[in-house]
Amino acid sequence: MTVEINSARLWNDIIESGKIGGTDKGGLCRLALSDEDRRVREWFVEVCRTEGCEVRFDELGNLFARRPGRRSDLHPIAIGSHLDSQPTGGRFDGVLGVLAGLEVVRTLNEHGIQTEHPVEIIDWTNEEGARFAPAMQGSGVFAGALEKETIFSCRDREGRVFAEELDRIGFRGDDICGDHPLDAYFELHIEQGPILEAEKKVIGVVGGVQGMRWYDLTLEGSASHAGTTPMKLRRDAAVAAAEIIVAVNRLAGEIGQGALATTGVIDAYPNSRNVVPSRVFMTVDLRHTEVEVLDRMEESLKEAVATICSKRQISEKLDRLWDSPPVKFDVECVDAVREAAKKGEHPLREIVSGAGHDAVYVSRVAPTAMIFIPCKDGISHNEIESATPEHVGAGASVLLETVLLRDRRRS
Amino acid sequence: MTVEINSARLWNDIIESGKIGGTDKGGLCRLALSDEDRRVREWFVEVCRTEGCEVRFDELGNLFARRPGRRSDLHPIAIGSHLDSQPTGGRFDGVLGVLAGLEVVRTLNEHGIQTEHPVEIIDWTNEEGARFAPAMQGSGVFAGALEKETIFSCRDREGRVFAEELDRIGFRGDDICGDHPLDAYFELHIEQGPILEAEKKVIGVVGGVQGMRWYDLTLEGSASHAGTTPMKLRRDAAVAAAEIIVAVNRLAGEIGQGALATTGVIDAYPNSRNVVPSRVFMTVDLRHTEVEVLDRMEESLKEAVATICSKRQISEKLDRLWDSPPVKFDVECVDAVREAAKKGEHPLREIVSGAGHDAVYVSRVAPTAMIFIPCKDGISHNEIESATPEHVGAGASVLLETVLLRDRRRS
Repeated sequence: MTVEINSARLWNDIIESGKIGGTDKGGLCRLALSDEDRRVREWFVEVCRTEGCEVRFDELGNLFARRPGRRSDLHPIAIGSHLDSQPTGGRFDGVLGVLAGLEVVRTLNEHGIQTEHPVEIIDWTNEEGARFAPAMQGSGVFAGALEKETIFSCRDREGRVFAEELDRIGFRGDDICGDHPLDAYFELHIEQGPILEAEKKVIGVVGGVQGMRWYDLTLEGSASHAGTTPMKLRRDAAVAAAEIIVAVNRLAGEIGQGALATTGVIDAYPNSRNVVPSRVFMTVDLRHTEVEVLDRMEESLKEAVATICSKRQISEKLDRLWDSPPVKFDVECVDAVREAAKKGEHPLREIVSGAGHDAVYVSRVAPTAMIFIPCKDGISHNEIESATPEHVGAGASVLLETVLLRDRRRS
Repeated sequence: MTVEINSARLWNDIIESGKIGGTDKGGLCRLALSDEDRRVREWFVEVCRTEGCEVRFDELGNLFARRPGRRSDLHPIAIGSHLDSQPTGGRFDGVLGVLAGLEVVRTLNEHGIQTEHPVEIIDWTNEEGARFAPAMQGSGVFAGALEKETIFSCRDREGRVFAEELDRIGFRGDDICGDHPLDAYFELHIEQGPILEAEKKVIGVVGGVQGMRWYDLTLEGSASHAGTTPMKLRRDAAVAAAEIIVAVNRLAGEIGQGALATTGVIDAYPNSRNVVPSRVFMTVDLRHTEVEVLDRMEESLKEAVATICSKRQISEKLDRLWDSPPVKFDVECVDAVREAAKKGEHPLREIVSGAGHDAVYVSRVAPTAMIFIPCKDGISHNEIESATPEHVGAGASVLLETVLLRDRRRS
C-alpha cells in the first residue's frame, strides 16, 4: 500500500498560516510569545483538534498534539519543529516541520490508518532565540540542557519577562517540561544551505549536526597618522586582522572534510581613512562534525593569531565563548529516513546539519533524525527564504513514510 | 650677533591661549568659526597690536598681523599656521606655527631689530576642516586652489553656513582673499609622525609634502550561513577584503622609498557572527613623494583588487576620490631653514611632510618652506598630543633665524 500525502493541502497550510505575522516582503515576523505566536498557536490547536488530536502544552509552552495509536502503552512517535520566526524570517524555517506533521496526521486520518504508536506533533517554544536569547529554549529545557528557571526569568530588549509573556498569551501548561517520553523524534526542515540545490538532490538524510565553536578576538595595536608613520614603525591592527582572516579561511581549506571557518564580524577603530587602525574586534566561527578536527582547527587558529600578532607587535585576546559539540543522530532513525527516501525514489544525499535545531537537544533524550529539503540559493533567516511545493511535498512524504517505518519496527 | 627667542614666553603663550577651548584631558576643542575660535582670535589680535602690529583680515577671515619693515615697498616675509583645532585635538598642531610667529615678532621688538621686509604673522581660517569640509579653506582660497563661493556656502553638520558663522564671530574682512603678495612663507609645525623622535633629531628640514591618493573600495559577494555554506561555494567579501589589505600593505613595503599604504576604514555587512559577509566597504590611502611611484602603487592596487575579486567571484567598485600631487618647497627657502638649523647646532634631518598643511597651498603663490619639531610618540589630532618646551623653543629659534636669513638675502 502506498500512502500519499496531499502536498497542495500542506502548501496551503503554509501559505494560510503564513498570513499570521506575514510581512510585506513575503516573509514572517512571528517572534516567540508575541501576539502573532499566540494567534498561530490558536489556529494550530484548532486544526489539530479538528483532526481528532488531543492537545496539551507543558509549563514552557511546548505544544503536543497527539493522534492516538492502537496501543496506549507505547510512547509517541513525534514530529516537530517550531512556529516562531526571526523578525525578518522566512515562511519555511520551523513552520515546515510542524505543518508537515499536521499533514502526516491528516493523511493518516484520510486513509483511516491506525498506527501502533501514538503520533504526536510538537511545536517547540522559542526555537529562534530572536526575542529571548538563547535559542532552542523549549527543546533545551525539555532535554534538561537548559534550566527552566533561567528561561522563565529571561527578558526581551523591552524588559518583558518570558514567564509573564507565556502567561499573557495563555500557553503556560501544567505538565512538567521534559516529563514526556518519546519513542522517536523526526524533524523536517529546509537545509538553510546550498548543497542539496547545487547537487540537485531533493532529500537530505541528516546524519547529525556539526560541532560549533565561537570565538571573540580583539587585536590592539597603535593608532598613528597614515601619512607620517613609516610602514616598519606601524602596529597596524587591521593588517594583523587581515592576515588572521586569510589564515582562518585557509585553515578550513587545508583541513577539508567539510571543515568551515568564518569571520563574520569585523569592527575597526578608529575607522578613519587616514589613521592606521589601533584596534580590531572580530569573530571566528569554526564548525566540523568531529571533535578532534575542531580541536585541530582551534590549535591552528591559536597558532596563526600568536604568530601574526607577535610579528606585528599586536596584543591579542582570543576567547572561546561557545562550544557546541557535534551531534550524531540515532542510526536506526537515520536509516529509516534513508529507506523512506529511497522508497519514494527521491534523489537523496547524506548530509550534516550546519545549523542548530530543536532536534539537537531532543536527540539527548529520544532517538532522533532529521530530513532536509533544498531551499532557494541556500538562503534562510530572510524574508526571501523560499522552497518549492514539489520539495515541500517530497519532504512530507518521506516524513510520513519514516514515521510508518518506525511504527512498524515496534509492532 | 645672536638673537635668542624667549622659549619660556612662547611656552606660556601656548599654555595660556590653550585655555580657550581647552579640554579636561589637556587638549583643544576649537572648531573653526566657533565661539572659541572667535575668542582666541580676539586674544591674538590684542597681543599683536600690543606688539605694534597692524592687524587686517580678509574676506575669508584669514588674519594678517604685520610688523613693519624698513622698506614698505617689499612684500612681507610671512610666518603662519592656524589656531583652529580638531574636536579632540592637541595644543600644538597649528597653534605652534602662529604663536612662534608672535614670539619672533616679540623677540625682534625686544632686541630693537628692524628688518628690511615687513614680517607678518598669519592665522589661516579653518585649516582642520573638522567642522566645515574640506580642510585648508583659508589658504586654499588664498592660493586660488579653492573657490571662494563654494567655501562661503558650505555647511557644518548642524546646517550652519560658513559665511554666516564668519560674520557671527566678526571676522569677515574687506580685503580680497589672495590679493596679498608674500615675499616668502614659513610654517613651523609638529611633525605629526614618529621619525624625528625615533632618530633623536630636533629639527626637520621639510623639503616638500607627499602626494596622496584616496580610494573607496566596495566589495560585493553573497551573504550565506556560516554553518551550511561549503568553503568552495562561498563568495566571502571579508576574505577578499583581507587579501586586499594584505596586498596593499605589501605593495608599500615592496616599493619602499618611504611609500605608505593604509586601509583605515573597514565596514563589513551584515557583520553578524554566523553569516558569511556579503559586502565590505574599505578605504585605501596611498602616499609618496613622486608622482610616478604613486602611479605604480595605484597600478599595483588595481591589479591586486582585480585578481583577488576575480578569483573569489566578488564584484568590486574602486574609486579614486582624491588626488593631491606631491609638493616640492622652494629650494632657497628650504636652504634657509637648513642653514638656520645648522647655525643653531640643532640635530637636523631632511624630511618630507606626510600630512597636508596650509603651506601646501601657499607654496603655489609664494616661496615656501616648513620646519618640523618632534612630537611625543608621533601622535597628533589627539588630546594627548605633546611636545617639549625645548623642542618648541628650538623650532622658534630656527624660525626666527630663517626669517632673518631671508630678510638679509633681499637687502
